[in-house]
Amino acid sequence: MMKLINSLWFKRRDIVSDGFDESLEYISKIIPLKIHKTSTGTKCWTWVVPEKWSVNEAYIEDLNGKRVLDLKDHPLHIMSYSLPIDKIVSKKELFQHLHTNAERPDAIPFEFKYYQRDWGFCIQNNKLKEFTKENYKVFIDSKFEKGSLKVGDYTIKGKTDKTIVLVAHLCHPGQVNDDLTGVAVLVDIAKELAKKKNYYTYKFLFVPETIGSIAYLSQNEDIIPKIEYGIFLEMLGNDNIHALQLSRQGDTRLDKIARYVMKRKLENFNEGAFRTIVANDEIAFNGPGVDIPMISISRYPYSEYHTSDDNLDIISKQRLEQSKNLILEILDIIDKDFTPKRNFKGPIFLSGHGLWVDWRENMELNQNLEKIMLNLEGDKTVFDIAEELNMKFDDVFNFINKLKELKLVK
Amino acid sequence: MMKLINSLWFKRRDIVSDGFDESLEYISKIIPLKIHKTSTGTKCWTWVVPEKWSVNEAYIEDLNGKRVLDLKDHPLHIMSYSLPIDKIVSKKELFQHLHTNAERPDAIPFEFKYYQRDWGFCIQNNKLKEFTKENYKVFIDSKFEKGSLKVGDYTIKGKTDKTIVLVAHLCHPGQVNDDLTGVAVLVDIAKELAKKKNYYTYKFLFVPETIGSIAYLSQNEDIIPKIEYGIFLEMLGNDNIHALQLSRQGDTRLDKIARYVMKRKLENFNEGAFRTIVANDEIAFNGPGVDIPMISISRYPYSEYHTSDDNLDIISKQRLEQSKNLILEILDIIDKDFTPKRNFKGPIFLSGHGLWVDWRENMELNQNLEKIMLNLEGDKTVFDIAEELNMKFDDVFNFINKLKELKLVK
Amino acid sequence: MMKLINSLWFKRRDIVSDGFDESLEYISKIIPLKIHKTSTGTKCWTWVVPEKWSVNEAYIEDLNGKRVLDLKDHPLHIMSYSLPIDKIVSKKELFQHLHTNAERPDAIPFEFKYYQRDWGFCIQNNKLKEFTKENYKVFIDSKFEKGSLKVGDYTIKGKTDKTIVLVAHLCHPGQVNDDLTGVAVLVDIAKELAKKKNYYTYKFLFVPETIGSIAYLSQNEDIIPKIEYGIFLEMLGNDNIHALQLSRQGDTRLDKIARYVMKRKLENFNEGAFRTIVANDEIAFNGPGVDIPMISISRYPYSEYHTSDDNLDIISKQRLEQSKNLILEILDIIDKDFTPKRNFKGPIFLSGHGLWVDWRENMELNQNLEKIMLNLEGDKTVFDIAEELNMKFDDVFNFINKLKELKLVK
Repeated sequence: MMKLINSLWFKRRDIVSDGFDESLEYISKIIPLKIHKTSTGTKCWTWVVPEKWSVNEAYIEDLNGKRVLDLKDHPLHIMSYSLPIDKIVSKKELFQHLHTNAERPDAIPFEFKYYQRDWGFCIQNNKLKEFTKENYKVFIDSKFEKGSLKVGDYTIKGKTDKTIVLVAHLCHPGQVNDDLTGVAVLVDIAKELAKKKNYYTYKFLFVPETIGSIAYLSQNEDIIPKIEYGIFLEMLGNDNIHALQLSRQGDTRLDKIARYVMKRKLENFNEGAFRTIVANDEIAFNGPGVDIPMISISRYPYSEYHTSDDNLDIISKQRLEQSKNLILEILDIIDKDFTPKRNFKGPIFLSGHGLWVDWRENMELNQNLEKIMLNLEGDKTVFDIAEELNMKFDDVFNFINKLKELKLVK
Repeated sequence: MMKLINSLWFKRRDIVSDGFDESLEYISKIIPLKIHKTSTGTKCWTWVVPEKWSVNEAYIEDLNGKRVLDLKDHPLHIMSYSLPIDKIVSKKELFQHLHTNAERPDAIPFEFKYYQRDWGFCIQNNKLKEFTKENYKVFIDSKFEKGSLKVGDYTIKGKTDKTIVLVAHLCHPGQVNDDLTGVAVLVDIAKELAKKKNYYTYKFLFVPETIGSIAYLSQNEDIIPKIEYGIFLEMLGNDNIHALQLSRQGDTRLDKIARYVMKRKLENFNEGAFRTIVANDEIAFNGPGVDIPMISISRYPYSEYHTSDDNLDIISKQRLEQSKNLILEILDIIDKDFTPKRNFKGPIFLSGHGLWVDWRENMELNQNLEKIMLNLEGDKTVFDIAEELNMKFDDVFNFINKLKELKLVK
Repeated sequence: MMKLINSLWFKRRDIVSDGFDESLEYISKIIPLKIHKTSTGTKCWTWVVPEKWSVNEAYIEDLNGKRVLDLKDHPLHIMSYSLPIDKIVSKKELFQHLHTNAERPDAIPFEFKYYQRDWGFCIQNNKLKEFTKENYKVFIDSKFEKGSLKVGDYTIKGKTDKTIVLVAHLCHPGQVNDDLTGVAVLVDIAKELAKKKNYYTYKFLFVPETIGSIAYLSQNEDIIPKIEYGIFLEMLGNDNIHALQLSRQGDTRLDKIARYVMKRKLENFNEGAFRTIVANDEIAFNGPGVDIPMISISRYPYSEYHTSDDNLDIISKQRLEQSKNLILEILDIIDKDFTPKRNFKGPIFLSGHGLWVDWRENMELNQNLEKIMLNLEGDKTVFDIAEELNMKFDDVFNFINKLKELKLVK
């Protein structure tokens, strides 16, 4: 995971850009991606795909030619989708186009105006005091042109067409935790699932934020009814506990399984309703008329968010591994889960069928045998039963599988 | 409003009486009333319309001819629907027919026995000590005859036949707050609504209490299915906070809108379930087999209730105006309310459609734009959304109307 | 009730045994029982009917022929369904087959291994120290043979085929409270109900625990859909408050009526969910695929449970009478209960129909007349109304019956 992050983080990965396309290409060497393209100007529901944007050079000089800001130093120095400019401006006018973050005065903030035509630079707040002159030359050699918004899609076919989609965005230049960590974990999960026989079909999407998901879904509406659940992954490397943001429905099987796994695996985690922890592409997947339940798993918040301090220093491989294992366990349960329905009447003659479990062998199971037996009416999944009885999923799963082998359950 | 009250309050407005009919005639000079008549003896569901009652003269004298009570002094001195009598009775027998109110010893109580044949006078408790003789002459020249129970009905046609009914009773002689204040506010509201184009049809009913509503509904059963909601108005002039008595259903849109308006308009108000604040004609409109949700708005309780102290001194024009405006606002919301249904998919591209609202312009709306967008599935009215998001109704109404103009909502 | 208990308690009433059959015969002299037989080896759903078991003689001797335990002294001295044996065994081996109860060291515990082939004796814990020799002779002359499991069934036909089943088990030898008290109360209730005209059909079952109910139900599946409710009676004589164990459904009319009667009749009682107070044959009647709501009424727990201390000394006739009356009242309400539906519209003209109830006559009824009137929509039974209004069942029942006579209710 760290290699991918190292290779991509400093790239100019604006939403429709050569850097974004190159990043997709990099990933497709690890897992085979299908690239969905949508041209500039295409109507995507109520949205329109923006132009491809690129920038060659950008700087601010005083009139003596002394550079006080140069894009070469950091990709965040320019506002993403800035207009080109080449002009002498007063300090006052310049300052209306300089973005800073007073709370992190030594960091360059991340700014973007995708749909509002403007020019702008981003700079450390502490550097504002160095602007002592009356006038400055501002130069931005940026270009807007027809292009294609791209979405990377890796699909692992399962036993059924029913699909679980996992999404991360690839579009914030010069940043790491948001969201190359999500991308890296996604790639690793994909590699794991590719080795297994799965019940569900799994689809991994690498998108430019918001517009990427909207473009993909609006151009592939036939896929929507097949997607049962979605997980958005982001900001998984920073030093904070996990945060589970529930789907808009809030109480789907995925919401419950994610909460169940987090409760059992983690010492501590946050939980919040839809859109109350962190806003991202769940608004597209789980939005009006789409309605795919999408949870989001992150370690949000963290103070370096949307600044040049969101770099390699703040993430750890160990935390990425922990997040990956957490999500794999959630997927393991949802993939194995099914709805058992009894074939028997009355209480089961447990000892007569070798089903008795001594308390010395498994106390939790021993105490719940009867309750499991009373919950096989076909209105609960194995997970529902495990959750209701506060038991280990695999204990319930294995016991019910024995009943299945004895044809006591179908 | 005060003129109507001044003109009618001292009238002998018993439930079926000339005084009641004259009062209806007075109102019909302000708003054009249709008069529904039901003859004495008519079966009205399980009830029967009583006879018309009138009284010419009534007094109590000692055997020296000294009058100790005379109906001329106050219409409440006789029990409504008293039998006639002309007899010398012992003080003991007389006292069994004298009604007083020990808690307001200087006031004459209001008593009635519409369905239980008896004679009786009403008198100040403090006057009982003046009865020092052994025997008294009691004289009541009252008359029972065939007549017609009358209900005044003013109907303002709206865009739809669906009807909201507003009711007040006109039948308590010699009293003001109960319920000439309700009548006066009703008349003013009728005048206001007549000036507007309304969605609902509004029906204003002036009735003798209980039997009037039962007579009207039982003789006009075809109207019942058209009536969606009802409001009973009463006792709106006294010095107390408003009381909202919910409908029998308790959670209709009208209940919620009334509570919402009261919460936003008033510093303080009482709220209670059906029949727990004050009992009135909601038992007919919202009773078994009729089931029209009817709330009641009053300023109950007040200590002068059902006595001669319920007079012009205890009401104020300002309070009547406040109640009127409150009810007009409730009606304004219910009349404008509708169920929006989205035409779009995914999140709306707000800035692309000029729909973005800056927080500096309207913070409440800015913070709720997304939530409004997520609530246009056709299962909530505009009011439901405003209530759920704790927002101003008109802000939500106006924003959704913009979506309607853009055909994003139908 | 005491005579039956006295006559049967010391009998060898193992689950399939001559003693059990003789006990049923004894009961059938009081109430006419139909005996259902199921042969050894019959498959009963997932269960199999065990063999008939009998024991002629059983003792432990030291090698000098001194008896240290003799079955003649108490039927509990042998483990029910013990294998036969005739062998010299070491003290160590013997002790692996001796069952004691350390918490009641002077009592013989009740032990059974119906489905697990083993031999064993039961003995007072305090007697263990008397075993001072190295070897002992153990002798058990028990016999396993083909037989018939028997269930006694007394059915009282009601106006409808819908059935309420009352069950107690007859199978614990040498014990009284568990469950000859349940049997005795059942017999007395049967005698009472036989004198009345009932709406429901009542079925009284006397079974060997668990397997008896499973055998009966599995061999009579056609009866199951007719059974609406069940009550299991047990341990009603000991000195403890009553315990109501709810049905698996937990909120049926029977659950609510039982709770209502207990609240009104008893100073104090325990209540618990299905299988949380005491486990018994409700697992068969109310188990998967059978689903007859079965409550259980007992005075559980008590410290003499499953020992030789569960004898005549710990029960009282007065407590059995109290339990009997409690259950008769529950049955009285459920039998009289029905769903009234109004024939009238609007509020009823109560005084016009002689239905008015003065508060001096019955304050509770007076205050609830209107509420009863508002609850006759056909979605509540008389009991539901009484419970909701916290009223005496018979007051509501009698008032609604008056409405029925006036054809205001059907």
